[in-house]
Amino acid sequence: MTPFLYAVPVLGIFALGYTWLRAGWVTRQAAGDERMQTIAGYIADGAIAFLRAEYRVLALFALIASVFLGYLGFTGERSSPIIIIAFLIGAVFSATAGFIGMKIATKANVRTAQAARTSLSQALNVSFSGGSVMGMGVAGLAVLGLGALFIVFYQLFVVRLGGSASGVEMEKALEVLTGFSLGAESIALFARVGGGIYTKAADVGADLVGKVEAGIPEDDPRNPATIADNVGDNVGDVAGMGADLFGSYVATILATMVLGREVRLGTSDAFGGLSPILLPMAIAGLGIVASLVGILAVRVKEGGSVQAALNLGNNVSIVVSGLFSYLLIKWMLPAGDITVRGYTFDANHVFYAVLVGLAVGFLMSTITEYYTAMGKRPVMSIVQQSSTGHATTVIGGLAVGMESTVLPILVLAAGIVLSFEAAGLYGVAIAAAGMMATTAMQLAIDAFGPIADNAGGIAEMSELPKEVRERTDILDAVGNTTAATGKGFAIASAALTSLALFAAFMGTAHISTIDISNARVLAGLFVGAMIPFIFSALAISAVGRAAMAMVQEVRRQFREIPGIMEGTGRPEYEKCVAISTQAAIREMVLPGAIALLTPILIGFAFGPEVLGGTLAGVTVSGVLMAMFQSNAGGAWDNAKKSFEKGVMVNGKMEFKGSDAHKASVTGDTVGDPFKDTSGPSMNILIKLMSIVSLVIAPHIARPGGEQGMAPATTRERLVLPQPRVQLVQQAAPAAAEAILLTALRQLQ
Amino acid sequence: MTPFLYAVPVLGIFALGYTWLRAGWVTRQAAGDERMQTIAGYIADGAIAFLRAEYRVLALFALIASVFLGYLGFTGERSSPIIIIAFLIGAVFSATAGFIGMKIATKANVRTAQAARTSLSQALNVSFSGGSVMGMGVAGLAVLGLGALFIVFYQLFVVRLGGSASGVEMEKALEVLTGFSLGAESIALFARVGGGIYTKAADVGADLVGKVEAGIPEDDPRNPATIADNVGDNVGDVAGMGADLFGSYVATILATMVLGREVRLGTSDAFGGLSPILLPMAIAGLGIVASLVGILAVRVKEGGSVQAALNLGNNVSIVVSGLFSYLLIKWMLPAGDITVRGYTFDANHVFYAVLVGLAVGFLMSTITEYYTAMGKRPVMSIVQQSSTGHATTVIGGLAVGMESTVLPILVLAAGIVLSFEAAGLYGVAIAAAGMMATTAMQLAIDAFGPIADNAGGIAEMSELPKEVRERTDILDAVGNTTAATGKGFAIASAALTSLALFAAFMGTAHISTIDISNARVLAGLFVGAMIPFIFSALAISAVGRAAMAMVQEVRRQFREIPGIMEGTGRPEYEKCVAISTQAAIREMVLPGAIALLTPILIGFAFGPEVLGGTLAGVTVSGVLMAMFQSNAGGAWDNAKKSFEKGVMVNGKMEFKGSDAHKASVTGDTVGDPFKDTSGPSMNILIKLMSIVSLVIAPHIARPGGEQGMAPATTRERLVLPQPRVQLVQQAAPAAAEAILLTALRQLQ
Repeated sequence: MTPFLYAVPVLGIFALGYTWLRAGWVTRQAAGDERMQTIAGYIADGAIAFLRAEYRVLALFALIASVFLGYLGFTGERSSPIIIIAFLIGAVFSATAGFIGMKIATKANVRTAQAARTSLSQALNVSFSGGSVMGMGVAGLAVLGLGALFIVFYQLFVVRLGGSASGVEMEKALEVLTGFSLGAESIALFARVGGGIYTKAADVGADLVGKVEAGIPEDDPRNPATIADNVGDNVGDVAGMGADLFGSYVATILATMVLGREVRLGTSDAFGGLSPILLPMAIAGLGIVASLVGILAVRVKEGGSVQAALNLGNNVSIVVSGLFSYLLIKWMLPAGDITVRGYTFDANHVFYAVLVGLAVGFLMSTITEYYTAMGKRPVMSIVQQSSTGHATTVIGGLAVGMESTVLPILVLAAGIVLSFEAAGLYGVAIAAAGMMATTAMQLAIDAFGPIADNAGGIAEMSELPKEVRERTDILDAVGNTTAATGKGFAIASAALTSLALFAAFMGTAHISTIDISNARVLAGLFVGAMIPFIFSALAISAVGRAAMAMVQEVRRQFREIPGIMEGTGRPEYEKCVAISTQAAIREMVLPGAIALLTPILIGFAFGPEVLGGTLAGVTVSGVLMAMFQSNAGGAWDNAKKSFEKGVMVNGKMEFKGSDAHKASVTGDTVGDPFKDTSGPSMNILIKLMSIVSLVIAPHIARPGGEQGMAPATTRERLVLPQPRVQLVQQAAPAAAEAILLTALRQLQ
Repeated sequence: MTPFLYAVPVLGIFALGYTWLRAGWVTRQAAGDERMQTIAGYIADGAIAFLRAEYRVLALFALIASVFLGYLGFTGERSSPIIIIAFLIGAVFSATAGFIGMKIATKANVRTAQAARTSLSQALNVSFSGGSVMGMGVAGLAVLGLGALFIVFYQLFVVRLGGSASGVEMEKALEVLTGFSLGAESIALFARVGGGIYTKAADVGADLVGKVEAGIPEDDPRNPATIADNVGDNVGDVAGMGADLFGSYVATILATMVLGREVRLGTSDAFGGLSPILLPMAIAGLGIVASLVGILAVRVKEGGSVQAALNLGNNVSIVVSGLFSYLLIKWMLPAGDITVRGYTFDANHVFYAVLVGLAVGFLMSTITEYYTAMGKRPVMSIVQQSSTGHATTVIGGLAVGMESTVLPILVLAAGIVLSFEAAGLYGVAIAAAGMMATTAMQLAIDAFGPIADNAGGIAEMSELPKEVRERTDILDAVGNTTAATGKGFAIASAALTSLALFAAFMGTAHISTIDISNARVLAGLFVGAMIPFIFSALAISAVGRAAMAMVQEVRRQFREIPGIMEGTGRPEYEKCVAISTQAAIREMVLPGAIALLTPILIGFAFGPEVLGGTLAGVTVSGVLMAMFQSNAGGAWDNAKKSFEKGVMVNGKMEFKGSDAHKASVTGDTVGDPFKDTSGPSMNILIKLMSIVSLVIAPHIARPGGEQGMAPATTRERLVLPQPRVQLVQQAAPAAAEAILLTALRQLQ
């Protein structure tokens, strides 16, 4: 075994070392006066309370999933019950990543507020350090987990049995490793959906009673839901986004490894023939170093541009990571022909695929920013339509959201074709891996936003001087932009990851074509494309219901607690936190079940081709719905913010409080669940369904050889496969019906 | 040649005879007093003015399209310039169908108002007779056109050259016949999109100034936009829906005929081997008779249920048509094995496919009604959410719209699988044909709604006694329900029609698989799925812009015309009519160009497989977006109507004028362009792109034999095809760029 194998987990440990040191530095910063610490304490307690409740439910889920995985593991020839261990480690690592992010965010928020008393540069330093702890923590855990487990499984399944780098033994090792990704993505689903419901229930509930009915400002400590609102920023934007990208990062590397097994290097035997499998892990590992270089480059002077500083850091990390990738590819891959599934290319082409991935990530982020940025044409068109009322504001935002799908889809389509042209299906996967290499940096930027937002909230609630709030507002505004670009990046990564997983699924399921002129595949495509719609409907309705419960609780407190409006009676913050927590936990179950069970039911009942059609449908429609909802929501948000800053409409300036501004608030409220609950959930939905499919692939595989079977005739294709797990097949229709009925009842 | 061939056009002439007689009867009914006739005259003039302007533009379009078709016809081996004639006849017939519908609707409306002075039964008789004129006119023109042209082309291309029923000669005859469908569907596109923009610009514009600003009721003659609003009902709901179903009806029959050529009947030689080709025309022809039986069954006594009478008529026509289909299938098809593309079945299975089609149509209509009906759970959930304001009303409707896709998609998926299991791809097509057999009846019911709506408007504007308005309101309420079920039926028909065309396209393009694991096909799937989003964005924005122009004109008239508010000054209705007309004509061009040019560009640049992927994407996403938008719009509309009738919210009755009602008006206004412009346009979009693909299929076909080529290896599949029309290929990227830039500029 090549000693180079050990370099990967070592890089993970290196990242975790940075995380530990930097977290210590943040903790040592001044945490402000007593009032600030009290408020920050409420937020931190609320966040931990949510995580505790969530992890309790997830432990139960992990137990059930383990039983299922164990059943599959014991019955399949190409699988092993050891997948349970990989799954549990993946789940625990993902939960840990979320925990680290939440912990540091709830420490960095108050310290950022305190630092903002001194200078903008200090405040940026603290908040961005908090973000970088999260980013490096996520990347470190992912690389450590994958790298270490791969060493173990390689020893266990390949070396011990004398298998080869491309044989069935390796297939089994990678199949077991898939469990790590499944664990990570499952936790991500619940974190994203649950967190999304939590944060918007609190936000909408706090606004509807506080701002609209009682007429008190945002983040006012008299509002009982204000702590829940600030907890929500951490739960949704920090832990949710972190888990999302942790999942994408792991899934991308894994899918590329699975495809790497099918790569043939001609006569070369470098790295024991393992190089195509090791390459994605190596790129991710050195991506950590590249991210660190970028993170260290982020510096701003008082009065300087925070956005420019972040952009510089991001660009540095992308360039360095591209350079590292080039060196790795040239070093690890041989000079001659490389083939995968009959498609031939060379090492240079693999690097071109990395470049395609970097370009797709950059373009999709940029386009997303354009469609949601203040002052640009899309947001200004909504601002314009706000002057004729609520309905036209909503119509305008919906149109912007729909339009915003055009360019990203063209970029994505071009990216798929070009990366495939470069290096076949391995190229598509490696493009995703290249794009995700700087995840640590990306996440540092993403997490900085909600920390700054929270810092502003604490400054407001603690009645800090005006210049403090001004500094945190500058950071917050930059945070809104980075949130938009981060969403574009997350969608791009989810799309490419799903495609990579899709390709890996086909190989593992031994199918070489998925023909949409086959009636069953076409039906699968329709059903798959429908799933993002029902998933969104469930998520949006959940927010609506939870927000209503919050509204009633806040009204009750205003009515019953004496002196609450005068600031002498203390609101019962923890009751509101409990409402959001319970609603989020309860409402995340059904969408989660749909995402997890649909591929299992369809795969076992109708076979891998139909499941492939379903995955294609989910991915296409999920990506579109993600962009439509996220961008519409982002554009509405900034249309509202335009009025708060003052904006020219039909030749006259309009400000906060005007009728047009009120209409824009309606748009923003409609957009809230779009952009923070249902929209981002789409990413996880499409990835998770692909991973589940990859996990069950050996169990629903077509009989036949390594390289997939020849396409059957129409008649044959119609015959149901005879899956090994008859039990599941018989149970499938009944279970499908039960889920459907429950879903419909839930919606009532 | 079998004499039975002539029966088909004769049945078409029979339907047109009914149309002529019944139209005469309607015209002879009393048209009311002078004031009523004056108002009806304005509406009729406005409608004709729109049609005239529209047809002028369409004549230009037809000229350009003819040049393109001629070029293709002269250069292709399997095509002929005679397709131009078929195309022009199709366009003229579609335009004529729209003209007949509009003429009779603008006569029946005032006569219905007059008849409502006597009794409900009389009013139903007149309005439904008007609808039946439209329905039988559409069906008659379609069957006459297709039947007669088939006879001509069969003589010209097959009999004259001694070809066989299944040979290339017949392929050419059917290819030329495709022109008829292309002509019909092109006109339908512009009628649906243009009509949809017209009607909603007038509606939203009239409401925003009239109801909201000036505080005068709907249909008030003092509102300058009120005539345009009533014209819009005819232009959008009558002519648009008529052209839509005319297009589906023709395309379904045609696609089944194209597939019928590939059906092998073993040793049987009945009908000169033509029976699988003739069967869909025969089913459509006898469907006219079945519809007539149903139409004659519609009768209601004073105080009776109008809905029950219409349901009875509809059910009668469906049952009779099913019976006729059974007899035709048993008579025309042999008893032994039948095969299509290697899939074997028998005559009984063809009938099962018809039953599947009837069931799909019925279920999709029923589900649509459930999701948009007053008092049912989905609408009541929106009513509930109206009590917390504009934003929650909008969120509620969006969630209902998304949720409403679930059951119809499951029905559709089951329909695809079952009809394919029954009789292969021919089964999918014949299911669509069976479903569309009763189009005449369906359209009679659809067209009755807007006639009743208009009658109510005329009664209001002419200040007729209260009981007249009460009777027209009863008819109008039923019309709202039939509009919802009609939309469900139209979506189902568009989906099945597109799939039938898709199958026909693959045969004509000589490809036997469309593999989504091919990177280019997958990219095509993504791009295709994006098109309904940009199309919707364009349609919605167009309504917004046109409505703003209308608002300014109405405001100007209120300001400048003396005595307008006192009813002494006459509003300049014709100016508002002109604004809606011009906006509709101008704004329909770009979406139309996208629908028509996308398949041409992709087909010639990337070949038939990628185009197939694109079509699959458009169809899947188009069906979902159609249901999402139409049902959300319908549900919002009825939530608003619930308040107008009075509804229980949180234990207390809420009425018109309450805050909750105002919120529901916002929902309704958001839903207007959804349900009457962008939503229904999706139907045409998906059909038209499939038809265009079918027309160009011989020109981008894979070289090789009849039954399609074997799937190429990955490498080969990536090589660009070498299409015959190099010019188009070179021009494609430039044209694509130009369209995209224009689209983006348009949106600014």
